[in-house]
Amino acid sequence: MKPTKSYAAYNATDVLKPYDFNRRELGAKDVLIDILFCGVCHSDIHVAHNDWGNSIYPVVPGHEIVGRVTAVGSDTQGFAAGDLVGVGCMVDSCRVCSACEQDLEQHCEKGMIMTYGSPDPHGNDAITQGGYSTQIVVDQDFVLKVSEDLDAKGVAPLLCAGITSYSPLKQWGVKSGDKVGVIGLGGLGHMGVKLAAAMGAEVIMITRSLEKGEDAKRLGASEVLVSQDEAQMAAHAGTFDFLLNTIPVEHDMTPYINLLKLGKTMAIVGASPTQLHTLPLAFGRKVVAGSLIGGIKETQEMLDFCAAHNIVSDIEMIDMQDINTAYERVMKSDVKYRFVIDMQSLKQQA
Amino acid sequence: MKPTKSYAAYNATDVLKPYDFNRRELGAKDVLIDILFCGVCHSDIHVAHNDWGNSIYPVVPGHEIVGRVTAVGSDTQGFAAGDLVGVGCMVDSCRVCSACEQDLEQHCEKGMIMTYGSPDPHGNDAITQGGYSTQIVVDQDFVLKVSEDLDAKGVAPLLCAGITSYSPLKQWGVKSGDKVGVIGLGGLGHMGVKLAAAMGAEVIMITRSLEKGEDAKRLGASEVLVSQDEAQMAAHAGTFDFLLNTIPVEHDMTPYINLLKLGKTMAIVGASPTQLHTLPLAFGRKVVAGSLIGGIKETQEMLDFCAAHNIVSDIEMIDMQDINTAYERVMKSDVKYRFVIDMQSLKQQA
Repeated sequence: MKPTKSYAAYNATDVLKPYDFNRRELGAKDVLIDILFCGVCHSDIHVAHNDWGNSIYPVVPGHEIVGRVTAVGSDTQGFAAGDLVGVGCMVDSCRVCSACEQDLEQHCEKGMIMTYGSPDPHGNDAITQGGYSTQIVVDQDFVLKVSEDLDAKGVAPLLCAGITSYSPLKQWGVKSGDKVGVIGLGGLGHMGVKLAAAMGAEVIMITRSLEKGEDAKRLGASEVLVSQDEAQMAAHAGTFDFLLNTIPVEHDMTPYINLLKLGKTMAIVGASPTQLHTLPLAFGRKVVAGSLIGGIKETQEMLDFCAAHNIVSDIEMIDMQDINTAYERVMKSDVKYRFVIDMQSLKQQA
Repeated sequence: MKPTKSYAAYNATDVLKPYDFNRRELGAKDVLIDILFCGVCHSDIHVAHNDWGNSIYPVVPGHEIVGRVTAVGSDTQGFAAGDLVGVGCMVDSCRVCSACEQDLEQHCEKGMIMTYGSPDPHGNDAITQGGYSTQIVVDQDFVLKVSEDLDAKGVAPLLCAGITSYSPLKQWGVKSGDKVGVIGLGGLGHMGVKLAAAMGAEVIMITRSLEKGEDAKRLGASEVLVSQDEAQMAAHAGTFDFLLNTIPVEHDMTPYINLLKLGKTMAIVGASPTQLHTLPLAFGRKVVAGSLIGGIKETQEMLDFCAAHNIVSDIEMIDMQDINTAYERVMKSDVKYRFVIDMQSLKQQA
């Protein structure tokens, strides 16, 4: 038994409170990780609040985990105590389905085992419990290697926000010289700007607020396009090689479709109802594509890319005890651009 | 001057009536075509009724033209009097833009010159005039060769309905053994079934009416899936390699997205407002793509494919004088599956 401190949601309405539980014993292929930092993703709040209707309580959120290996199972390879590692949105999958064989474990036909909230036959709780905790035991195949060259605090959000932005940029072949629009400047959007710029693209931040957009230039955008400005939108019509749409609320996709060049793609990483008139799609044989985080292999590739380009997330550090205030601020989009919990604060808690 | 009989819309509200005008003189690269048959496309009605707000009158509709060459210009190549030929939705384009260079003249950056209703500097009317007429003069590069082996009447609808269905099937790589769903059984849908089946796909007709769907089996579908039947839809979830969506009215795309396999595409060829929740798109990295008719090279490829597989449209023949009744029936979707005008009826008209 591995006694573990955490913060959990006990139901859909209360604030998060301390929760003590036991991590599973280290299996032959497991890695025990002392958690240093954990990012705060909007999904954490959705699950805590049961917004998707399938939460099981108590649940410990957190799937942007960076920590150090403290012990390894007898059949592990390539991990040793002291290694800096990461864990993202998944901790297991079936490994044998067509999706898993394509390194798309996030689309496992049996369903990925999410880092928190998934039924967990191996754990002591009914469900997997996430990274708002002092330690975690994870199968080695779902543990990522993190470069010591990067600021580990800013690496945490790469494990969800980073890979979610990186995967569609790679899937749709964004390359040097491409004109890429990133729509929406939150946790995902700010990573999209950094990553696309590092790939050599000319990045345009597309946002409703000029003021917010200005910050994007610091992140790597060359220009800000205000989506409410019809003249500006018309001036950019038909000029984009790729769009990354991170809008998390209901919206009309049609004005963005008009920005794309012939045959080009807008990838959607926000979860929201949308409207779309198919005429602009047809008159330009344009493409709208969904994307969901990324597979383990691609997540490692993204971390290595970030290490090579010195990219981390812009963060605001909080203590574990501040999580409920942080949730309120995330719900108001009042964070630049990701809260990261310093887990030392939890370890020191009485 | 080439005196030509036709039927034209004189305004947005009256029925079509006879209209006499002059085709342009034959240029060096032009082909003069005696029109034998012309299909009736729903677009003809939209333009006649000014549904898109940009109609110029009088306008002679018709862009599914089959006829015989009666004369050729001095600089033409490969056409001779007596040849069976076709003309589709376009009669010219800029030829030099990036789209034209990719054989995607339908996406010409200057705008394709449509067979009817486009400004026409070369003609005697202000606009191009279409195929509800006795003859037409067309630049050789926009004239298609038609096999004598096919029933020329049924070839006419291939020039719009055929290529509109064929192009997305080819673009998205439909191949033998694929499970392909064709959504909606009208002019486009019935061609989609025939073409996908000829490509070796297992074709499922997806429709709201079981009765209507049964006819699809005669056309080549192996099964009918009733979209209103939630149990049936659930049984087919995640099993389709490709969907061809021909729905011409406002609808929710989400239930169809759920039918696709991981990473697969629904192509949209109907022009309509749609709703889409992005979650099912993301949870399956699925793709929605627009498609618009097809380029000239691909249209010839489609005609050759149809000749090789003995495919023509299912048609109901009418006389030119019956056009207004036909329009009423098309607007009620009361046609299996395309009206084709026998132009002999116009030639014999006093």
